[in-house]
Amino acid sequence: MSMEEREGSPVVGILGGMGPSAGLDLASKLISETSAARDQEHVPFVLFSRPTRIEDRTAFLLGNATVNPGIEIARQIVAMEETGVTVAGMACNTAHAPPIFDDVIRRLTTNRTALKPLHLIQETTEFIQRHWPSVRRVGILGTPGTLRFRIYDEPLAAMGLEPVQPERAFIDGPLRDAVYHPRWGIKARAHPVSSRARQALVESIEHLLALGAEAVVLGCTELPLAVPEDAFDDRPLIDPARVLARALIRDSYPERLKPWRAGETPSP
Amino acid sequence: MSMEEREGSPVVGILGGMGPSAGLDLASKLISETSAARDQEHVPFVLFSRPTRIEDRTAFLLGNATVNPGIEIARQIVAMEETGVTVAGMACNTAHAPPIFDDVIRRLTTNRTALKPLHLIQETTEFIQRHWPSVRRVGILGTPGTLRFRIYDEPLAAMGLEPVQPERAFIDGPLRDAVYHPRWGIKARAHPVSSRARQALVESIEHLLALGAEAVVLGCTELPLAVPEDAFDDRPLIDPARVLARALIRDSYPERLKPWRAGETPSP
Repeated sequence: MSMEEREGSPVVGILGGMGPSAGLDLASKLISETSAARDQEHVPFVLFSRPTRIEDRTAFLLGNATVNPGIEIARQIVAMEETGVTVAGMACNTAHAPPIFDDVIRRLTTNRTALKPLHLIQETTEFIQRHWPSVRRVGILGTPGTLRFRIYDEPLAAMGLEPVQPERAFIDGPLRDAVYHPRWGIKARAHPVSSRARQALVESIEHLLALGAEAVVLGCTELPLAVPEDAFDDRPLIDPARVLARALIRDSYPERLKPWRAGETPSP
Repeated sequence: MSMEEREGSPVVGILGGMGPSAGLDLASKLISETSAARDQEHVPFVLFSRPTRIEDRTAFLLGNATVNPGIEIARQIVAMEETGVTVAGMACNTAHAPPIFDDVIRRLTTNRTALKPLHLIQETTEFIQRHWPSVRRVGILGTPGTLRFRIYDEPLAAMGLEPVQPERAFIDGPLRDAVYHPRWGIKARAHPVSSRARQALVESIEHLLALGAEAVVLGCTELPLAVPEDAFDDRPLIDPARVLARALIRDSYPERLKPWRAGETPSP
């Protein structure tokens, strides 16, 4: 049975641009998590990658920028809804920090916009609880912004899970360098990543496991580029972008959602 | 100087979904061909990947579908313009066949839509003439649809260039199988591609060179996945998606266009 895009039928929206590759990464996972035999069976989506007016999220959180990026994010979600989008997600961990995400929701509510973005962090913590019910201590890797603002802590705690953060020496050392180092960080060299970036992340994962983490969230879009495997020492590694992609399909065309299997990362 | 997305400032539109991965591929090349040091400097773009109502292009050209895909393509370009898009491109070679492309332009003109898509084939032939002025015989690889409808022939001839087509045995043999074979074709296995698909394409390229081609156009989005190099036996291999990505930047933020160099394919 073909899945017609009629008036009022579901359309997925991806708010990208933070950075542009993160939006593409989420779109690519939306495609790879869809069960489709031909073009016409794929989930229809609209990707906005309009970063020029979205203030840097970490800069705002650290007080180095005064304009809340949520203002422009909310404006773009309103524009997305006008194209027919019925369910949306934001391809950025840091944009889910409460000072930004709550501002977005407040603006959309005031504007009477029905479209509200799914919550990447919320979806990820629910995913962990559903698929690994015995896991209690969850390690978090991410940018210094995500970790200092402890974006995952409250959603995890609300489910009775315990967040495990790297020590400060890792946050501002190998973990930061793995993403941001100007010569060998993933933002500078992504295809392929440098062996130093990979090594720095492996050390950070080992550090979290030594602290008692039973699973590790790769809480920054860049990280799965260097750590593509789905487990490390038999502990699951969780890619929030893949979780969000699956949540977007679940809320639009659930019959098209591929069965999820640990140990399998479908290629795009 | 920051590149603000003001009212009326340029925004790129990508009409994707034909198939969904081709749209992402063009978006990824838009990013990799842009010179940008931070998120906010990237070219703003909107990607529509809404394939459910776009009839199969080849099926329409072959008379196996009665609804012109141009109807829905034009409708989506109108919707794109309403989001602020000022310059657009379509990520599909076959959609540029005159029975489809001319229908799109006619509908947009009737509708008084200012936004018109760039012409992938036209841009590619101009690119060849500009960068390899001594080349006269241009080999074309692509789907059976693209080759039987000789989509590249007229634009090449208009510039005094001579198209070189594979013989029928290749079009309906190794070339078709490289893309469509249910077990080892690129549409079935893209990451990584099979060695058989790669080998079938290498044979097709060698066949075109033996027929006198001095350059070869990889006229189907799938082909560069298996033939990522930019030359073969010192003859240039041309990726139309990369050419279109550069044309979209040229017509929106030309100061952000990376210098083009043969022998260099920037990674996304």
